[in-house]
Amino acid sequence: MKKMEPPKLRRGAILERPLLSRESVKFKLGSLKFDKNGLIPAIIQDYKNNQVLMVAYMNQESLRRTLKLGKTCYWSRSRKEYWVKGLTSGHFQFVKSIAYDCDMDALLIKVRQVGKACHTGNRSCFYRKIL
Amino acid sequence: MKKMEPPKLRRGAILERPLLSRESVKFKLGSLKFDKNGLIPAIIQDYKNNQVLMVAYMNQESLRRTLKLGKTCYWSRSRKEYWVKGLTSGHFQFVKSIAYDCDMDALLIKVRQVGKACHTGNRSCFYRKIL
Repeated sequence: MKKMEPPKLRRGAILERPLLSRESVKFKLGSLKFDKNGLIPAIIQDYKNNQVLMVAYMNQESLRRTLKLGKTCYWSRSRKEYWVKGLTSGHFQFVKSIAYDCDMDALLIKVRQVGKACHTGNRSCFYRKIL
Repeated sequence: MKKMEPPKLRRGAILERPLLSRESVKFKLGSLKFDKNGLIPAIIQDYKNNQVLMVAYMNQESLRRTLKLGKTCYWSRSRKEYWVKGLTSGHFQFVKSIAYDCDMDALLIKVRQVGKACHTGNRSCFYRKIL
């Protein structure tokens, strides 16, 4: 794998992670298995305490935007649009790491969560229990 | 919600959690949103260190079996069959808690993982990184 180059930060850019090289991204994204709707589930986890915050869906373009921005960008299945988490609420998720599973059909994204992940005001979307 | 009754343990039963009452399970399962294939993604997390181990899919019946067994039971999308994790490998997942998210379309299951969660021999299926 090509070594990552240091990012060229523009004035005002909010990046906590370096950008990946174009070749590296192309290689990695091409190997992932998106479902027949072009989506892959992304588990979002607090990078400090490992709390699972939410599950959302990405297509290849939203994953590319996530890598470029350094903040999570999802595909909203209900609104059918790209959705940079925090753009309206301020509750951004700064990406710390992105892993993929053995089947290459799920992502695990560790983030620094600003504020709350859930629109209900809870830090995590998983605030109710069956058991 | 009706209070859980203590489980009736049969000789040889391996249960670390009490069974839920029939009414409670019916109520909870009926509220969850399964997709058009009748499935809901389940994130499996180590109950001690919060490591995310894997993602698998459940239908209502496999979730019912999970609650009854106290061990995870999935629906294998590829093999089209129920799959009690660990039945062949011995790598059972003893259920400690089950939460559901605000949209009611994802589960977070904390488990005591025996051995490894991943068939590759890694403890977690998320052993490779994009970033």
